[in-house]
Amino acid sequence: MIDTPYLLFLGDAPDQLAAKVAQGIKDWRPDAAVGQFRMEGCKADMGLPDMTLEEAKAAGAKTLVIGVANRGGIISPAWKHVLTEALLAGFDLASGLHNLLRDEPELVEVAKAEGRVLHDVRIPSVKYPIANGVKRTGKRCLAVGTDCSVGKMYTALAMDAEMQARGMKSSFRATGQTGILITGDGVPLDAVIADFMAGAIEWLTPDNDPDHWDLIEGQGSLFHASYSGVTMALVHGGQPDALILCHEPTRAHMRGLPDYTLPSLEELRDLSLTLARRVNPDVVVTGISVNTQHLSEDEATAYLAEVEARMGLPAVDPFRHGAARLVDALQAIG
Amino acid sequence: MIDTPYLLFLGDAPDQLAAKVAQGIKDWRPDAAVGQFRMEGCKADMGLPDMTLEEAKAAGAKTLVIGVANRGGIISPAWKHVLTEALLAGFDLASGLHNLLRDEPELVEVAKAEGRVLHDVRIPSVKYPIANGVKRTGKRCLAVGTDCSVGKMYTALAMDAEMQARGMKSSFRATGQTGILITGDGVPLDAVIADFMAGAIEWLTPDNDPDHWDLIEGQGSLFHASYSGVTMALVHGGQPDALILCHEPTRAHMRGLPDYTLPSLEELRDLSLTLARRVNPDVVVTGISVNTQHLSEDEATAYLAEVEARMGLPAVDPFRHGAARLVDALQAIG
Repeated sequence: MIDTPYLLFLGDAPDQLAAKVAQGIKDWRPDAAVGQFRMEGCKADMGLPDMTLEEAKAAGAKTLVIGVANRGGIISPAWKHVLTEALLAGFDLASGLHNLLRDEPELVEVAKAEGRVLHDVRIPSVKYPIANGVKRTGKRCLAVGTDCSVGKMYTALAMDAEMQARGMKSSFRATGQTGILITGDGVPLDAVIADFMAGAIEWLTPDNDPDHWDLIEGQGSLFHASYSGVTMALVHGGQPDALILCHEPTRAHMRGLPDYTLPSLEELRDLSLTLARRVNPDVVVTGISVNTQHLSEDEATAYLAEVEARMGLPAVDPFRHGAARLVDALQAIG
Repeated sequence: MIDTPYLLFLGDAPDQLAAKVAQGIKDWRPDAAVGQFRMEGCKADMGLPDMTLEEAKAAGAKTLVIGVANRGGIISPAWKHVLTEALLAGFDLASGLHNLLRDEPELVEVAKAEGRVLHDVRIPSVKYPIANGVKRTGKRCLAVGTDCSVGKMYTALAMDAEMQARGMKSSFRATGQTGILITGDGVPLDAVIADFMAGAIEWLTPDNDPDHWDLIEGQGSLFHASYSGVTMALVHGGQPDALILCHEPTRAHMRGLPDYTLPSLEELRDLSLTLARRVNPDVVVTGISVNTQHLSEDEATAYLAEVEARMGLPAVDPFRHGAARLVDALQAIG
């Protein structure tokens, strides 16, 4: 677990998109972020108070979270200076970057001397078991997508927030780096050793109260030639009671695979159910989450109505319209 | 690549089954094994000449291959003594054990001093790419199973041997530790990082002559809750033109999963084709390989005839009856 609250490090982000990890924390865990730290030339802004390390420390921040992607895959000298200063000021560091904090000898040395922790959430810190497929108590909902990056994390977070607001028992279960930094815990599934993928998801979503829902963050797509094995492990390890189908209707081809078109929602429904029934014969699809960011309001409304009629399931864009109807559908089976 | 020929180390194997890695090498690459090394109390016998290290060296052996599972997951002092002597005698060492040679400081030290190589085939030695799903030249055949350990490796090896005998262009592509020790090369897929599984299989089965067949060793099962993600990566990374369905008809439940029954051959066919068509719309199932070791000759003949009639595909036990009909079916589409 990563100590909260956070100071969000935006570095020299060239634009708002480069700081999407910080944006995720700000959107979904606003109480965990006391402020932002921006360097010269930073073009991102979370709308949080700009703070020096000293000011953030005084405000109670415990961990400096790198909320921005690094350019060229290296931790620049300018960044390293700030990170070192943060360790000296008493902060832990947390990062989802590909190049690890622990691979930077200066940071390791200072962290050790100061008794601070370097959290590299990119890679697992747990020895996961082999999955055993034994039925667990409690309920689980998994978001599956026609493609990568269609809004699966957002959907699960929005449903969790709605369930919390209703006083339901729920937990967002992070399976990717941004999700882990948002919640402070989770499984970085894409970095897990093949044999332990499904076991890692069983570990992440253990026995729970009969009326508790795990909202499991999806990864990849069963139809994505690069990452489908990761998604398969989520379906079998997650043992879902409910599936949410996630889709982005304007995409011309699968992300990163120009030769591959997206499957239909019907294909996603049928394949996901076939596979998930192996571990839970009672699994059902309860709703559809559409990322309509590239559609106008009218287009989005028309598209959602068409999908809802065609699939016979509530179809919403949780960003535009909230996750209430997706949660209603879970309550109806829970 | 591991230098050949091998001296097969059988250690203190309590029975023949404990030395199944040595058995695989002896069965499939007899020219690569000059002899066997057995310790006091060894109950396994490959029918190879028993040799001292010196005799094996004189016979040309270059690598001592650990062909036996170790008891209790530790490399015993008695084993370590032999392994050290082998390094001093000029042998490389190769092992598929879970506990790695490289984690034994004495072996590392002696290997370094003597300029010898420690091959731990349990873990990858290559940085694999992310799969790109681009269509490759050449043909690929993948064995998929209703369960783990139903004869997928044996089937692919038997087909490769038959194709070599016919003068066809073919390569057995190992994806597990035993297969790698047999061929001297391959991908230890169960130990690959999740994001790179499909890419590792693309790397293993690159562009080739139009009439060349890769016989890809299968792993796990699409229906096995613990390992299905690994199998999925094989289906999407392998881009198969042909699938062979593998089955063991007497098994009461999935291996290691007492709550799970095996799927039918029809379910395996339908799911495998659905998934494989994503990367190769022309994929077909060309045959069925049944492991009939627990059936009498009459039972096996009757079972195979029933399956063949029901599925409309050649159904054979390649161990009992050879792989000729499975290869005929490949030639018919190749």
